[in-house]
Amino acid sequence: MKRPTIADVARRAGVSKGAVSYALNGQPGVSDATRQRILAIAQEIGFNPNSAARALSGASANAVGLALCRPARILGIEPFFMELISGVEAELSARSYALTLQVVANPEAEIAVYRRWWGERRVDGVLVCDLRLDDRRVPVLEELNLPAVIIGGPGHSGELAHIWSDEAAALTEVVEYLVALGHRRIARVGGLPGLLHTEIRTEAFGTVCRQLGLERTITVSSDYSGEEGARATRRLLSSADRPTAIVYDNDVMAIAGLSVAQEMGLSVPNDVSIVAWDDSPLCQLVHPSLTALSRDIPAYGAHAAGRLLAAIAGKPLGDYQDETAHLIPRGSTAPPRPS
Amino acid sequence: MKRPTIADVARRAGVSKGAVSYALNGQPGVSDATRQRILAIAQEIGFNPNSAARALSGASANAVGLALCRPARILGIEPFFMELISGVEAELSARSYALTLQVVANPEAEIAVYRRWWGERRVDGVLVCDLRLDDRRVPVLEELNLPAVIIGGPGHSGELAHIWSDEAAALTEVVEYLVALGHRRIARVGGLPGLLHTEIRTEAFGTVCRQLGLERTITVSSDYSGEEGARATRRLLSSADRPTAIVYDNDVMAIAGLSVAQEMGLSVPNDVSIVAWDDSPLCQLVHPSLTALSRDIPAYGAHAAGRLLAAIAGKPLGDYQDETAHLIPRGSTAPPRPS
Repeated sequence: MKRPTIADVARRAGVSKGAVSYALNGQPGVSDATRQRILAIAQEIGFNPNSAARALSGASANAVGLALCRPARILGIEPFFMELISGVEAELSARSYALTLQVVANPEAEIAVYRRWWGERRVDGVLVCDLRLDDRRVPVLEELNLPAVIIGGPGHSGELAHIWSDEAAALTEVVEYLVALGHRRIARVGGLPGLLHTEIRTEAFGTVCRQLGLERTITVSSDYSGEEGARATRRLLSSADRPTAIVYDNDVMAIAGLSVAQEMGLSVPNDVSIVAWDDSPLCQLVHPSLTALSRDIPAYGAHAAGRLLAAIAGKPLGDYQDETAHLIPRGSTAPPRPS
Repeated sequence: MKRPTIADVARRAGVSKGAVSYALNGQPGVSDATRQRILAIAQEIGFNPNSAARALSGASANAVGLALCRPARILGIEPFFMELISGVEAELSARSYALTLQVVANPEAEIAVYRRWWGERRVDGVLVCDLRLDDRRVPVLEELNLPAVIIGGPGHSGELAHIWSDEAAALTEVVEYLVALGHRRIARVGGLPGLLHTEIRTEAFGTVCRQLGLERTITVSSDYSGEEGARATRRLLSSADRPTAIVYDNDVMAIAGLSVAQEMGLSVPNDVSIVAWDDSPLCQLVHPSLTALSRDIPAYGAHAAGRLLAAIAGKPLGDYQDETAHLIPRGSTAPPRPS
């Protein structure tokens, strides 16, 4: 059941482990005859200088780490992370790198994971998600000198490389489209406060609504779960002056919102228009299918992984702006009913 | 940027790497004075005998591998895998094991990954999903002596440990419930043919339908995607003698089926009842919420991981039957309209 080790080779050859190491690494310290004998025994019992040995000599661990700080129940349901991981994986596999995944409970646990991974040489670098305002992980990663690519931005990533998408421009496009359809009361169900991309969206929402002179703009915060998306929608649609359009910060909450509208006897899109962000295949499974902000998430993951491998290779990297999400109108948006 | 290596310690101490290894491992071959000097230098420059070193000496890699052989677009949308991974992760983290994840294109690529992982000592064992009839992975894993736990069964896993859930009993419960409601024309949209659990469900479906004297039983195969689930539903609901109830092999296809019924102007559950398997939070996001076969997928993953760690520790394991899924009736099932 046990794989052969350097100790097995040493025992068979009747030499020390150090001598085996000299022989396998082509270093002086053993005679040519002994070297040949050791190499023959290593081959015979199937001992190969392996990834562990390479890591020990300072070479690559050939692995990249991704720590995800989200409750398990949300990771399971939200397509975003699995799509991102698919893209990361595609890039890493092509370059023979493994992905080491860990779900963590909070940012402190995440920092501890980075220290351990780097200290034990389990990874050559890390991808970092869910950038926060004043993110405590950034100075730690800088201090560790652990190669890293932050997925998120712009800014707030210190000296670390990052890859980002223009959330403000995408949100502005949605609001302008809804206003062009005739909507004046637009609400937004936002994601976790404190995450940089949530804050960027919230600020952009306020800005564009003011610019377009909208009478009422409200953002309700949530944890991205369907439960909170449903609760927020029920509250919004129960208000006296209910919105005629709602923009959701993920697909799962938008689907929950659609379901609440149907449960309350409201027609989508006639009584209320719904926009989801990010788009995913889920948005096309429901009826009506959901208008959504779409971008290629697997490609985003692949680009992030590619840049991390470049960082690991020592190439200097700055920030990188990926594609901006674009609006795909489907059945869930229409002009509001004349009031 | 580089972490200190054994070579750095050797250079500073003016000794060979072999001598450093002797000193760090408490082996003879260096004087006490040299040993103390080497240990002091190692501590000073922050060199720790690390996981790579431990793996080299035949100790654990402290990592478990999971190769997923599904197209990225399906992995992204189906909650099952991410829920399973969440459970695996929870168990591994508690025991300080890492999870190495790889998405592979086909069973050949998966086998190659296992050979590489084991050859390079990247993992101490693997979890294996999607057991097939005459599964080619089983004899390879047996030959490699790579500790493994198969998630699936019963049977078809050779001498390898496996963990399974009684799919036949769960399917029988669904059909008996639908028949008790008065349904006589029940269809099933099944998952990928060739997967053991699909075949077990298909056989159980035929058996229970015959036992209950149902006039018409049809299973349509699919790839688990929403697109194929929608297409199969459209075909079933367009037939002259359309079914009054449809059972789907996953949640995503059931949601797509609900959407198709609505698009065709049929009422769920009055015109057609819908049952999803496995249950997930998605089933409660749609309106009406979906009757589903439910079980604790994260717990299933945690049990599988726990048994793999036991196998890695050399404990003898046989098969292990996990919880059977149970029916949770929600709004998508009802007696059929009187014809």
